[in-house]
Amino acid sequence: MSVTGGGRVAVKALLFAGETRVFGPGKADLLAAIDRTGSISAAARTLGLSYRRAWLLVDAMNRDFGEPLVATASTGATLSDAGRAALAAYRRLEAAVSDAADVAGGELLAMLAPRST
Amino acid sequence: MSVTGGGRVAVKALLFAGETRVFGPGKADLLAAIDRTGSISAAARTLGLSYRRAWLLVDAMNRDFGEPLVATASTGATLSDAGRAALAAYRRLEAAVSDAADVAGGELLAMLAPRST
Repeated sequence: MSVTGGGRVAVKALLFAGETRVFGPGKADLLAAIDRTGSISAAARTLGLSYRRAWLLVDAMNRDFGEPLVATASTGATLSDAGRAALAAYRRLEAAVSDAADVAGGELLAMLAPRST
Repeated sequence: MSVTGGGRVAVKALLFAGETRVFGPGKADLLAAIDRTGSISAAARTLGLSYRRAWLLVDAMNRDFGEPLVATASTGATLSDAGRAALAAYRRLEAAVSDAADVAGGELLAMLAPRST
């Protein structure tokens, strides 16, 4: 995130398989919330998603990746090793594109009108 | 854009001034279309926007940047020097974050399930 006089560049990294969007900031936040809360329903609640929506997202991730990212049991849900690895790799990707935006975005940010707030 | 076994990372760079989104891929494409066609209405048509929507986007850009990006006259519309500079700076920003995604996205792409198509 680049800041110059109140302006900033936000970058969104989206993974596609063919034409299908398979991963992005929303699913990353869902994985992080499951890791934190230990359940899909608690994770859904903290993110303001319905349980059904969160479950469908988990189900899609588990099929789109080579190994399931979330392991579910009657006692709750946890990230698999693959889930932890995918979340960490996505956060690294986000950091890398954000760093690149910090470097490359300054020129454009400097062209914005000054703002009174 | 990074490609590994049918997967790719797409990156979207969005400029904010405070909480307001002031520039992104849609406005960049509109500037490019105005530059190509010489009019807001022709540019709107090529992008599938209403004239009103395109005009509002141009008006917002002209106020959000330090200098107007689009000059309008009875004969049509052209990019100002600032408009050309902003479009070029945004394309450079896009290229930089895309290059970063190519480098940093491989690890995550390699974790996707193989696809039959």
